[in-house]
Amino acid sequence: MSAGANVQPGQIVAVGSETGKEDLTREIAAAAYRAGAKFVDVAYFDPWVKRARVANAAPESLDFVPSWYGDRVLALGDQRCARIGLTGNVAPGLMADLDPTLVGRDMLPSVKESGEVVGARTTNWTVAPAPTQGWATLVHPDLDPGAALDKLWGEIAHVCRLDSDDPAATLGERFDFLLSVAARLTERRFDALHFEGPGTDFTLGLMPSSRWVAARFETVDGIVHFPNIPSEEIFTTPDPQRADGVVRSTKPLDLSGTVVRGLEVRFEGGRAVDINADEGAGALRSRAEVDEGAARLGEVALVDRAGRIGPLGTIFYDTLLDENAASHVALGRAYPFACDDEADVERSNVSAIHIDFMIGSEEVDVTGVTTEGDRVPILRGGDWQI
Amino acid sequence: MSAGANVQPGQIVAVGSETGKEDLTREIAAAAYRAGAKFVDVAYFDPWVKRARVANAAPESLDFVPSWYGDRVLALGDQRCARIGLTGNVAPGLMADLDPTLVGRDMLPSVKESGEVVGARTTNWTVAPAPTQGWATLVHPDLDPGAALDKLWGEIAHVCRLDSDDPAATLGERFDFLLSVAARLTERRFDALHFEGPGTDFTLGLMPSSRWVAARFETVDGIVHFPNIPSEEIFTTPDPQRADGVVRSTKPLDLSGTVVRGLEVRFEGGRAVDINADEGAGALRSRAEVDEGAARLGEVALVDRAGRIGPLGTIFYDTLLDENAASHVALGRAYPFACDDEADVERSNVSAIHIDFMIGSEEVDVTGVTTEGDRVPILRGGDWQI
Repeated sequence: MSAGANVQPGQIVAVGSETGKEDLTREIAAAAYRAGAKFVDVAYFDPWVKRARVANAAPESLDFVPSWYGDRVLALGDQRCARIGLTGNVAPGLMADLDPTLVGRDMLPSVKESGEVVGARTTNWTVAPAPTQGWATLVHPDLDPGAALDKLWGEIAHVCRLDSDDPAATLGERFDFLLSVAARLTERRFDALHFEGPGTDFTLGLMPSSRWVAARFETVDGIVHFPNIPSEEIFTTPDPQRADGVVRSTKPLDLSGTVVRGLEVRFEGGRAVDINADEGAGALRSRAEVDEGAARLGEVALVDRAGRIGPLGTIFYDTLLDENAASHVALGRAYPFACDDEADVERSNVSAIHIDFMIGSEEVDVTGVTTEGDRVPILRGGDWQI
Repeated sequence: MSAGANVQPGQIVAVGSETGKEDLTREIAAAAYRAGAKFVDVAYFDPWVKRARVANAAPESLDFVPSWYGDRVLALGDQRCARIGLTGNVAPGLMADLDPTLVGRDMLPSVKESGEVVGARTTNWTVAPAPTQGWATLVHPDLDPGAALDKLWGEIAHVCRLDSDDPAATLGERFDFLLSVAARLTERRFDALHFEGPGTDFTLGLMPSSRWVAARFETVDGIVHFPNIPSEEIFTTPDPQRADGVVRSTKPLDLSGTVVRGLEVRFEGGRAVDINADEGAGALRSRAEVDEGAARLGEVALVDRAGRIGPLGTIFYDTLLDENAASHVALGRAYPFACDDEADVERSNVSAIHIDFMIGSEEVDVTGVTTEGDRVPILRGGDWQI
């Protein structure tokens, strides 16, 4: 517990799980109680029920969320709870025969209040992968089911550093390094980032006070926690009004069961004005229309090639893992704590969504642009230049 | 849907399920959406997480319930939602090695606000059995697992009248009969009931305005629904101050995983002053100490031998089914709508718990006692005498 959500004695612990992840969920609940949790509130989301909804409910009702879903999340913040989320698609292809636009309209289990609570830093939280048979078969379709699950578990153990003698210490060393890069990058106060590679020529403005953040968060009450396990990224809040050019995704994106492949997005004046893909574009398009901020960027993250995920070459179809394999941007909600000036916090992007998609690879150069127009290499061939 | 919760177009439908009941839960969700539900909110309770809690958490924390659990139930009432609950023990014996007193302290998934919402008649609801392998093995331990599940499904289909050409009509006929008996019994305005049989000599006072209720409920908005499927009982609200004598249960009682066998309860002045059992007494004792009303009675129900459950001779270890096989009483919360005078409603029992236990059989005579002291046979050998 201490290396993840860092559950404190007396805390309520909310666990966001899914049907199919019962075994790991129960182990986490037991561990949380042993760490002194007052209550573990497990919410099992059932993607098959979501499928029944999208297939049968009135299309105009698909964005409805009962009032108590958001109320619960806000209460988790007010009551200074811990939150643990488990990723990994339990039912790949479940939505394949449904209209992606309708699938995209139902954003559960994600609720907009989560962003508010993350921004307020009132909960200590972590998100970690939970291997299941369904997910393993998606990631390793050429292996038989048992071998696929064994291989996925092995990879998850490796990237989470569970195969080292002291996983928490090994993670901690990597996090220290990422924090040092983030500090150097923050000092440079770049005005913009330029991404250049196959299919990508894209410039993204930063805020004057954009601060690069990594790996280790702290709540308003001083509880240090690791929000993502694993984590290989450093990220900040971009200027939502300045993004121009075309960016081609370097990995497929899984949107609650719909896989978006060959994504290409054109930005003008900060807005995604064109979203195309070889497959599944509708699911992202409908999400990008949810509100004014949904077509603008809330995050830019840089990932080097020294992490453990990229070198595996595995596409996990899971944002937590794939986003930590490659540099990425996110449509939607910004993390306000990644700006230092109140004026920049006010200008940072607001939305009900937050969807990361991968735009980095060893073939994509990342260059910092200063307010004077000087160009400074940041990533070349996946290696830090600063 | 129309014969159960009677889901209305545009309603939110809350489904209270458990891990292990996914298949039926998903069918119900799909059916509710086809009936026009606006949203189906499935809550899967996980008894293994509850086990982890009882085994690891601080004993004094076991009655804690997060604020949003009750808030959600109250919102279901305020927003005039439908509610569907699925019974059947998915994990028999799961709590067998734990202290029954500790197990009894954690009353989830039951929350006290449910009684309030039922009493206010703001939701149309039903509770129905969901056969699972775990439950089948408990009920039919001598059969192999597949045969046990087949047999349980067959029994459930039979008692729910799913094996008739028109299940809703067949249920409706039985419910009409029960309602006619209830009306005759209400007219008699008995002052008390006397139960007499092996190990039982027990007198229970009724309220001046106690009204016998059965099978078919109606919300404040006029939505007719069947709260229990199946239902073979007629019931009313007793006087919580008048219960005297000893009553021996005629069936085992399953309390969230702890089975209470050979239960014997002695009442004095309406209060359960002695709770003994061959097995599991602690689980009931700790529940009866939860609040002042928990040791007093909130329901008395009469069941004849013409229903479909009793003749099977099967013990289901499930209150929904077993209570409809035999006359019973319930410790705890009363249904205020089963009294007509405001003064009686005010006096009816209030508690966070409502636990039915079976006290009837063909060997137990039930006699009505008038205010003048006259004795009128009600049930003899399981047959109605009025």
